[in-house]
Amino acid sequence: MASNHIYSAFDEELKFLMRRISEMGGLAEQMVAESVRALVNSDAALAQKVISDDVLMDAMEKEIGDKAVITIARRQPVAADLREIIGALRIAADLERVGDLGKSNSKRVVAIQATGVPRKLARGLEHLSDLALTQLKEVLDVYTTRSAEKAKSIRDRDEEIDAIYTSLFRELLTYMMEDPRNITSCTHLLFCAKNIERIGDHATNIAETIYYMATGAAPEGERPKEDLTSSVGAVAE
Amino acid sequence: MASNHIYSAFDEELKFLMRRISEMGGLAEQMVAESVRALVNSDAALAQKVISDDVLMDAMEKEIGDKAVITIARRQPVAADLREIIGALRIAADLERVGDLGKSNSKRVVAIQATGVPRKLARGLEHLSDLALTQLKEVLDVYTTRSAEKAKSIRDRDEEIDAIYTSLFRELLTYMMEDPRNITSCTHLLFCAKNIERIGDHATNIAETIYYMATGAAPEGERPKEDLTSSVGAVAE
Repeated sequence: MASNHIYSAFDEELKFLMRRISEMGGLAEQMVAESVRALVNSDAALAQKVISDDVLMDAMEKEIGDKAVITIARRQPVAADLREIIGALRIAADLERVGDLGKSNSKRVVAIQATGVPRKLARGLEHLSDLALTQLKEVLDVYTTRSAEKAKSIRDRDEEIDAIYTSLFRELLTYMMEDPRNITSCTHLLFCAKNIERIGDHATNIAETIYYMATGAAPEGERPKEDLTSSVGAVAE
Repeated sequence: MASNHIYSAFDEELKFLMRRISEMGGLAEQMVAESVRALVNSDAALAQKVISDDVLMDAMEKEIGDKAVITIARRQPVAADLREIIGALRIAADLERVGDLGKSNSKRVVAIQATGVPRKLARGLEHLSDLALTQLKEVLDVYTTRSAEKAKSIRDRDEEIDAIYTSLFRELLTYMMEDPRNITSCTHLLFCAKNIERIGDHATNIAETIYYMATGAAPEGERPKEDLTSSVGAVAE
């Protein structure tokens, strides 16, 4: 929580920002979950709903941005109070990007419909998205408790998402090599998998922001997150 | 420029932020140009240089963030002065992402080396990156002049990048269908093309931020930018 101060109107403004961030987080989670369901079930109507929801996300980010600037100008906060507001701006930007990724996946549903998603790939995508959503959910919980320690621990474990993404990436390449008719839809699924993997990155960004809000510093140590697939094919396969 | 004020120390702090943003912008442009040259020429050493440069970008973004928060706390700016600082934070975040995209492309150089990049695709990638770099360069020029009108006009034309990206996307699919041995390297090139297209998005973000810094508002009208490839394959091909 922000440090104590005497302006209860200021408290209200901070609470407004926190509430909106939580709402954005809830909508972002829902968009990601629904986009994967739409992909796996070839559900164009659900995909369209996710695409429409993105307009709400953009409006919420803009509202948070405007409110943050007004609050800084009016209250002239320093230290933890100022970090609280700058942190809200950063988190809103990350959540807006998560919504964009859900929208991007939804826009591919129609292109994939022709061939559908093979059962095994669908399970892989669902697993990847479950992991990313768990990470996002945990980081949003930490946002309400402001535990620097927990924020750091979320940032430090992303390896499972990377491993699943890498295995999906290889599997998609295999499908394409087996039958050229799979190439178009598997290409879209590659981008979908990459989008879900990037949701994990945004959760990690948010964890770093929460650590900064709580301590005023960046977490120490190299950020562990890396896309391991960029060298797939570097050795003969 | 920011509105007039009597603190020359504050002016110095704003100038510091502007200078650092310009430096980040210059380095981001260089990283993108070098990453495409590394791809096209299979130049692993140049790719490694870009990957190393990304550490500088991260450090510069952090420095801008720290300086911005200290400046807000110390000077308690309002109106245009506050927007100047919030804008610097946003632009630094976009430029840091552009550097990441250059790094991501560079990391794929080794995986693509085995097959190399066919001449026609190389030209397509170079064309795409020239357009994205021109847009980035223009938007960084507008940052120094703060012309809301020019910022809006950059935001309103992105169609050419989209058209080139869509044609590259289709071409890459064709290469993959022609010969399964192209699939791995073409998949990496697809991600590279997407990364370059996203640089155009970040230039558009920066244009919107400059408009906001100059006017306090978001530019009116729907943002034109969309990835048109997400429906490729939606009709039988």
